[in-house]
Amino acid sequence: MLQALDLAHQIENGALTPAQVVERCAQAVAAHETQVTAFAVIDLEAARRQARASAAALAAAPLRGLPVGIKDIFDTADWPTAYGSPIYAGHRPRSDAALVTEIRRVGGLILGKTVTTELAFMSPGPTRNPHDLDHTPGGSSSGSAAAVAAGMLPISVGSQTGGSVIRPAAFCGIAGFKPSYGLLPTIGMKCFAWHLDTAGLFAARVADVAFAAAAITGRPLRVDAAPLHAPRIAVVRTARWNEASTAMQGALETAARAAAAAGASVFDVELPPVFERAFDAHAVIQGYEAYRALGFEYDRCRDLLSAQLRGLLEEAAGLSSDDYDAARRSAHQARRALAELIGDGTVLLTPSAPGSAPSGLSSTGAPTFNRLWTLLGTPCVNVPGLVDTARLPLGVQIIGSFGDDRSTLQAAMFLEAALKPDAER
Amino acid sequence: MLQALDLAHQIENGALTPAQVVERCAQAVAAHETQVTAFAVIDLEAARRQARASAAALAAAPLRGLPVGIKDIFDTADWPTAYGSPIYAGHRPRSDAALVTEIRRVGGLILGKTVTTELAFMSPGPTRNPHDLDHTPGGSSSGSAAAVAAGMLPISVGSQTGGSVIRPAAFCGIAGFKPSYGLLPTIGMKCFAWHLDTAGLFAARVADVAFAAAAITGRPLRVDAAPLHAPRIAVVRTARWNEASTAMQGALETAARAAAAAGASVFDVELPPVFERAFDAHAVIQGYEAYRALGFEYDRCRDLLSAQLRGLLEEAAGLSSDDYDAARRSAHQARRALAELIGDGTVLLTPSAPGSAPSGLSSTGAPTFNRLWTLLGTPCVNVPGLVDTARLPLGVQIIGSFGDDRSTLQAAMFLEAALKPDAER
Repeated sequence: MLQALDLAHQIENGALTPAQVVERCAQAVAAHETQVTAFAVIDLEAARRQARASAAALAAAPLRGLPVGIKDIFDTADWPTAYGSPIYAGHRPRSDAALVTEIRRVGGLILGKTVTTELAFMSPGPTRNPHDLDHTPGGSSSGSAAAVAAGMLPISVGSQTGGSVIRPAAFCGIAGFKPSYGLLPTIGMKCFAWHLDTAGLFAARVADVAFAAAAITGRPLRVDAAPLHAPRIAVVRTARWNEASTAMQGALETAARAAAAAGASVFDVELPPVFERAFDAHAVIQGYEAYRALGFEYDRCRDLLSAQLRGLLEEAAGLSSDDYDAARRSAHQARRALAELIGDGTVLLTPSAPGSAPSGLSSTGAPTFNRLWTLLGTPCVNVPGLVDTARLPLGVQIIGSFGDDRSTLQAAMFLEAALKPDAER
Repeated sequence: MLQALDLAHQIENGALTPAQVVERCAQAVAAHETQVTAFAVIDLEAARRQARASAAALAAAPLRGLPVGIKDIFDTADWPTAYGSPIYAGHRPRSDAALVTEIRRVGGLILGKTVTTELAFMSPGPTRNPHDLDHTPGGSSSGSAAAVAAGMLPISVGSQTGGSVIRPAAFCGIAGFKPSYGLLPTIGMKCFAWHLDTAGLFAARVADVAFAAAAITGRPLRVDAAPLHAPRIAVVRTARWNEASTAMQGALETAARAAAAAGASVFDVELPPVFERAFDAHAVIQGYEAYRALGFEYDRCRDLLSAQLRGLLEEAAGLSSDDYDAARRSAHQARRALAELIGDGTVLLTPSAPGSAPSGLSSTGAPTFNRLWTLLGTPCVNVPGLVDTARLPLGVQIIGSFGDDRSTLQAAMFLEAALKPDAER
């Protein structure tokens, strides 16, 4: 994989140029893209031109001229943006999404648009998991996760409304960062549910995704320089623990033990019932808002929607404003309860997905272990490093308090280091 | 003016058809549009066709087939959407904004797109004030307010980031409703500042705008059936009282006296300093977010921006995330303080603008008396009925607690009734 932080250091030191990094991407694309199909649009020439034309300025910028892939749910004026839907085939937005502009402003090179599921919901695109081509890469940010896992990109952008950043990161064995709700701008990103949609990032390791987040936001989110202090980690199995595979249950215990062995204070917590109500509230808020946000598509292009999305919207049409208000209240209550539970700087440790990537490409897997945290708006980081008996990645996630993205990334990096065999540390 | 509630009643009773209402609009358009220039796009034929084709279904729907004007900041797939900017000349979105879909779903007939200032900021469009063509109609929802005031539309849609609903409503002598932040969806509305942008509505009287809001949201916001109980009204002069004209200062006293005479409990409150900090925070949040939301326009089409907007964005480029976070904290503190101040169902009464519509078309007036309430996300209703010595409208606003849009509309209707000469009640 292309490790963003190491590449950035080498560019900073003059050992590497942005143009050379683009060529590394190009080589990996040549080797893997035909099989992985991570890109909806790829434009190596545009990246090459820009890398040559602005080499010095890019190398001095926060993102150091590193190539970035943009999930095809974000508008780009320079490339088609189809949101994974035939409704938008050939659509060319008039402007860039705010996050695309931000990435350009800090010296990122847009290398292409990555495959998304249909309108960032559940109907898969053609992307395959680089660890085993017969398995899903997860979704909805399928291409962004697979491109990084296949070494075709050091950084990519995704979005999460249910579990669309953390789950594909877990299935592809890379670091995924769903920041606090609103930390990365969602203007110009196709909306599914406005209180849930959260832009996020992928990179090889936790330090890489933290580097990217720091560069893009201009906030002190890097975790590579600071000495890692041992975090307080509350292990959360949630009411859906029995939906986790045996391998995943084992992975969580392994992660908890490794963190404790490395010096973290690790203990169990059980979530009170208010969180179960919030879990149910996610579906109501998602449906109610999607019926409105995708109203044009549902009312005027229904035949071009997948049966799955059409079904969700059909059902959502019956939700009342009272249902919605009650769901929003449940979410508020759970946010307050969580602030009491981990207000002291504790982070949570829980599965990123029910197991490793399911076989087949007809489903991108279940957001069972993601929806609650998306609803609560908390920062979540998928920590890679564990595998199942088939050598497929198993991801666990560190979850922090809303707004405390830095501590969350630090704890995730601590766990990532704890999971490495001694020889690799 | 076309009074939405009365028209809806007549359609409901079979005394009028949606097609006949479209013809009333057409007559007013023929009489006034050349001088007022409220529309960016007008499509009477589309409204006529739809009114004829679906007469029964429309008449049975919540909005009763009433014509609605859409501020040209909301995307429409059927008509060009230029956001008041040459950057988007001829732009034809691929889909409708969520609010446009909502209006269609409840039986509204889209009659056209109304003039907005450039990207809903300060640079005026060509619209004139129907009360005096040499005066501004206010902005940024200039066309929406002027079209209702000129009798060309019974209902129109606007948006407010500073004072863009309440101020033009005040200058045009109509009811303007800026609901609680988020009540009307902003998906598909060109973003200026995502924590401030609020969609709103215009209609002739408070009961009309409440009828429209109830029909569009499906929430119990109508105020025409309920008996009006006398509200508790706190008169707020704010730290900027000296920026209100003598006429406006007099209008506020008149409104307070009329409400008290009608039985309301009226008293003065002084806002603590936390509100002054929040007032200042508005500019920081607006600038920081606009520099990102309009990043594409600023970075790639700068020459097509007005000097005023370019200047705002240039200055905003220097705002740090620390500035922004501090401003967001000030906003939170003021929201909490307001909840304590009026948590008991009290509403506030304050000017809608510094005075009546300034003469000339080079400025749409100042948002001095609006920014704080936009930032706090509270429902605001411009109450028409007062005029200055030149017979230009003077608007005062009723402000309620976040989420209590119904009480706010009720109190506004109480005040509107109290302001009428006895003979008209």
